[in-house]
Amino acid sequence: MVETLTSEKNPLLKEVRRAVARGSLTEDGFAVAEGFHLLEEALGAGCEIQAVIAAESITDRLPDAGGARVAVVSEKVFESLAATETTQGVIALVRPPAWTVDDLLRGATLLAILDGIQDPGNAGAILRAAEAFGATGAAFLKGTASPYNPKSMRASAGSVFRLPIAAFEEKSLLAVLDQSGIALYAAMPRSGQAPADADLRSRCAIVIGSESRGVSPRLAERAIGLRIPTSRVESLNAAVAAGVLLYEARRQRTSL
Amino acid sequence: MVETLTSEKNPLLKEVRRAVARGSLTEDGFAVAEGFHLLEEALGAGCEIQAVIAAESITDRLPDAGGARVAVVSEKVFESLAATETTQGVIALVRPPAWTVDDLLRGATLLAILDGIQDPGNAGAILRAAEAFGATGAAFLKGTASPYNPKSMRASAGSVFRLPIAAFEEKSLLAVLDQSGIALYAAMPRSGQAPADADLRSRCAIVIGSESRGVSPRLAERAIGLRIPTSRVESLNAAVAAGVLLYEARRQRTSL
Repeated sequence: MVETLTSEKNPLLKEVRRAVARGSLTEDGFAVAEGFHLLEEALGAGCEIQAVIAAESITDRLPDAGGARVAVVSEKVFESLAATETTQGVIALVRPPAWTVDDLLRGATLLAILDGIQDPGNAGAILRAAEAFGATGAAFLKGTASPYNPKSMRASAGSVFRLPIAAFEEKSLLAVLDQSGIALYAAMPRSGQAPADADLRSRCAIVIGSESRGVSPRLAERAIGLRIPTSRVESLNAAVAAGVLLYEARRQRTSL
Repeated sequence: MVETLTSEKNPLLKEVRRAVARGSLTEDGFAVAEGFHLLEEALGAGCEIQAVIAAESITDRLPDAGGARVAVVSEKVFESLAATETTQGVIALVRPPAWTVDDLLRGATLLAILDGIQDPGNAGAILRAAEAFGATGAAFLKGTASPYNPKSMRASAGSVFRLPIAAFEEKSLLAVLDQSGIALYAAMPRSGQAPADADLRSRCAIVIGSESRGVSPRLAERAIGLRIPTSRVESLNAAVAAGVLLYEARRQRTSL
């Protein structure tokens, strides 16, 4: 089902533009995934594809759209849609999987909590590291970029379609963790245990705070601080800090 | 020395624009550092400042320029100069420190080698992690973003002014490492030792390859492969992979 869209005011294109501008889902709940690779990852994860928008220049190598509608638009219209620089002429509208809180905590819980990670590139890189190191899920708190921001999705390299994700209010997240007996750790720049000395083998959640404001006071008060040993304080990018802590958790869990 | 520049064709502004477009130093060898924080870090590191360019909107809170010339320009002209979105109205032209090869290898060598890291944000985040985890220096191979790309500098959070850095041809870098008896490791997605099982306490260098092409064949052949244990292959961002390996080196070195 390949069609050509000529009007910039086409409802589908308007929806994509709005979602990109907001950095979140379309009204119908689809995520704007840019590039061949993300489309493949979405199909591989079994996600529903609403439509694929393709630039005229790639009509001779249109991607497999899993049976969804393919809309071809001019280069000019295509460029007016894209949020990232490397779309390769493909934008897919993907329905993200629906997860329950139980999905995020299932089994030997290792939950990544993103607390005010504003940069979508960092948020996506954290999802990617979380999946790589065997986290069971990721919790998004207020002030964090949407996991469905096109830039987050790109940086996640497809993990956004596979890792269980949910948005939480701080209070309800703490209640869930308490109820399930899940230990709470938080990355702190100035004080706390060395990650290698903490017990990350038991069910646990690790808070990564924003680079500018750190972990919220309420979470910091409840959490066991983890200080990654560095030569200088506050000297790690949020995604690198998350990567190191999740690596350390996996290292402990696999050397049992 | 505060002056107002009104012509967009002023030679200083033209130089800045050219350097930003190229993602490298100005003709005179100055780096374009955006934001108050980087200017402070440059002054803290004792770097020479050629000039500070400030937007009109911040004339009531001009930064300390360490005695350098301060040029005030209109908002419109300022916006035409900036490479990043969060300049805060300040651009400084900073002469980066000059390093010798010996500076990079001094003492208990831990050298980060950037092999084709094209994304300046990743290159800068690697410098930041390298300094944080006590690396002695960073080597830039062909195809890697310039450490003096304004975006690399922002992501380095100032590490670019303190960590010894040099550009190398692959061949001469290998010669230097051989001559100094420095072990060569490389991050590999598919095979190699677990980093925790490798001896990263001795003088060593760690190659981080590009996300798309990996480590160059010549380096891969000479290096001991390190495979970060992950659930899926090729599943880490280059800066996260570098951070994990440098963290592991520091963990081993401090638990001696």
